[in-house]
Amino acid sequence: MVVTVTHRVISPGMFIGVEDADVVSFGSGQPDLAPPFDVGEVFLNFSRFKYGKVGGEDELKAKLRGYVKREFGHCVDEDCIMVTNGASEALDLVLRKVSLDPGRRRVLLTKPYYYSYPHLARINHMTPMYTDANIDLEDVKEKSGNCDVMIVNSPANPTGNVIEKSVLRGIQEITEDNGCILISDEVYHSLTYESKHYSPKGENVVTVNSFSKTYSLCGYRIGYVFCQNPGFMKDICEIKAHTSMNTNLLSQRVAMECLCVPKRHVLKNREIFQRRRDYIYRRVKELGFEVEKPEGAFYVLPKVGDSMSMARDLFFEHRVTVYPGERLGASGHVRLSFALPQDKIDEGMGRIDEYVAKL
Amino acid sequence: MVVTVTHRVISPGMFIGVEDADVVSFGSGQPDLAPPFDVGEVFLNFSRFKYGKVGGEDELKAKLRGYVKREFGHCVDEDCIMVTNGASEALDLVLRKVSLDPGRRRVLLTKPYYYSYPHLARINHMTPMYTDANIDLEDVKEKSGNCDVMIVNSPANPTGNVIEKSVLRGIQEITEDNGCILISDEVYHSLTYESKHYSPKGENVVTVNSFSKTYSLCGYRIGYVFCQNPGFMKDICEIKAHTSMNTNLLSQRVAMECLCVPKRHVLKNREIFQRRRDYIYRRVKELGFEVEKPEGAFYVLPKVGDSMSMARDLFFEHRVTVYPGERLGASGHVRLSFALPQDKIDEGMGRIDEYVAKL
Repeated sequence: MVVTVTHRVISPGMFIGVEDADVVSFGSGQPDLAPPFDVGEVFLNFSRFKYGKVGGEDELKAKLRGYVKREFGHCVDEDCIMVTNGASEALDLVLRKVSLDPGRRRVLLTKPYYYSYPHLARINHMTPMYTDANIDLEDVKEKSGNCDVMIVNSPANPTGNVIEKSVLRGIQEITEDNGCILISDEVYHSLTYESKHYSPKGENVVTVNSFSKTYSLCGYRIGYVFCQNPGFMKDICEIKAHTSMNTNLLSQRVAMECLCVPKRHVLKNREIFQRRRDYIYRRVKELGFEVEKPEGAFYVLPKVGDSMSMARDLFFEHRVTVYPGERLGASGHVRLSFALPQDKIDEGMGRIDEYVAKL
Repeated sequence: MVVTVTHRVISPGMFIGVEDADVVSFGSGQPDLAPPFDVGEVFLNFSRFKYGKVGGEDELKAKLRGYVKREFGHCVDEDCIMVTNGASEALDLVLRKVSLDPGRRRVLLTKPYYYSYPHLARINHMTPMYTDANIDLEDVKEKSGNCDVMIVNSPANPTGNVIEKSVLRGIQEITEDNGCILISDEVYHSLTYESKHYSPKGENVVTVNSFSKTYSLCGYRIGYVFCQNPGFMKDICEIKAHTSMNTNLLSQRVAMECLCVPKRHVLKNREIFQRRRDYIYRRVKELGFEVEKPEGAFYVLPKVGDSMSMARDLFFEHRVTVYPGERLGASGHVRLSFALPQDKIDEGMGRIDEYVAKL
């Protein structure tokens, strides 16, 4: 399918789900690697078709509880975990619930941020506030005092930052003291390279996670959310009962299959991403751009100056997609995803070389 | 799975997705009939797993456009149709978009109403207003003048009413003149008995529909929404890009399969429901309750007096589920779904006979 762009304007949303053979896309935030099983096999003899429980299938929730205990050390009661249409719906439900309570209607985000966060705030009639992604606990303390919710995202999109355990603990304590909910978005949890992933814990913490990145299932929209507060979970489940009902049963069946996949599959994928990370980081540095080495996820975020014109010229003149940082709170930077095959990364970096040589 | 109810309180949500062998449930608003194909077969060689387009797969949208033209006489442009997580998400997206615009934030509903409508209004920071389901166009004219949106639902849950074409046309003209969006929720379109379904048309009409009832696929959450205004559709697609992204690809694949199913399958199901309708209507009348003969959908709504205590006693003493009308805007009535096998209907009606005999 050919991308037809009448106006020469770049927006991250315009490329979602669009594929074009001659474009090298460093744009898309999703694994190129295949899921760890054959979907056809999963549905042999599958005969469920009626509504499921709004919060998720019992069997899947039971398995998930074991998984989050084993992987992240979270003890979660049965009525405190819920299956959602991807992490997106989980985030939206949490903000939605907060927006319906009396409060200040402010959300504290780390900047740069995942593209959707400020939009989700606005869609939920809330105002986004910002603190630097290189966390300054004093600033978090001051600002979270005026917010109902803070979102942390470690490993982070688009910076690749992994926030240290001690810092995450500091954020958790501060937000708890400030009566502020801490949403921990951990969709990249399985992709940390040198650093170790830590999942914050506490009474005010709501954890959002997904099968999308870990098991290469972005298109199946299967995520989950949990916390320590059954009343809070009941409220968001009640909202979901009206806004989308149960998460589709087909994806829940696939999620069950994921939880049976041996951990070596996930570790093997991490190795692949780590090799790509090393490679793309070196190539980007060789181009002369200032860039941090990503510790997790699958993005690099070099500082390039005029990122809008770079993204536009790369796309229209070199058939390479990168995201300008402007809409990610990273003005003057571009985001390159390395969730594409090594030969495509080679080809794309070669084209970027050509572009830079002409400057 | 056994329903454990600690507090003897009945709410419609508590039964969703719950099954119990010894209970006869007239509660659930979903077909008991199987889908028209084997899901396992559908996914042989299926290999899509990445994000899809937020608005839906091109192939499915193209087929849907043909379908809505053929079935309802709607000419819909490619950029004016969108695939959603069931009709629920479609309704929610439309209300959400309206709630983000400056306006009066009022939604006009017909009463009795589908359980979720007033909740969806409130979740979207809007106030529900009501007009009688036996439409009085003068009242619609007066009230829609103070509303941003009106929702009509024909065939209707829970009344089984089918609104006449001339009345629907009247509502459409009035709402258009009043600058009010008309949402037409047509999820029961394939289930009309004597009357004929009419799908309202006009510049202010947003049509919401689903595969759930027509193809017995409630658990797969696959619906769609269309209108004549590409700007409006772009806005709700933008919201969905942040709140849930693409509708799951597995369900979209199943939806494609539905659109290849011969129409005789749908007509055969309608016959089955019509026979059940005739039977349950007769039995309910014989019990001595005042009841309208449903012209569509799969519900009867007899007037019973103290519906809360009837629903409670039927459930706890006779293991029969019916929904009290209180939460459907039908105080003093109970809703019985006839989307269950004939032998279960027999058994359940027998138990209700026993209950009534004891009164």
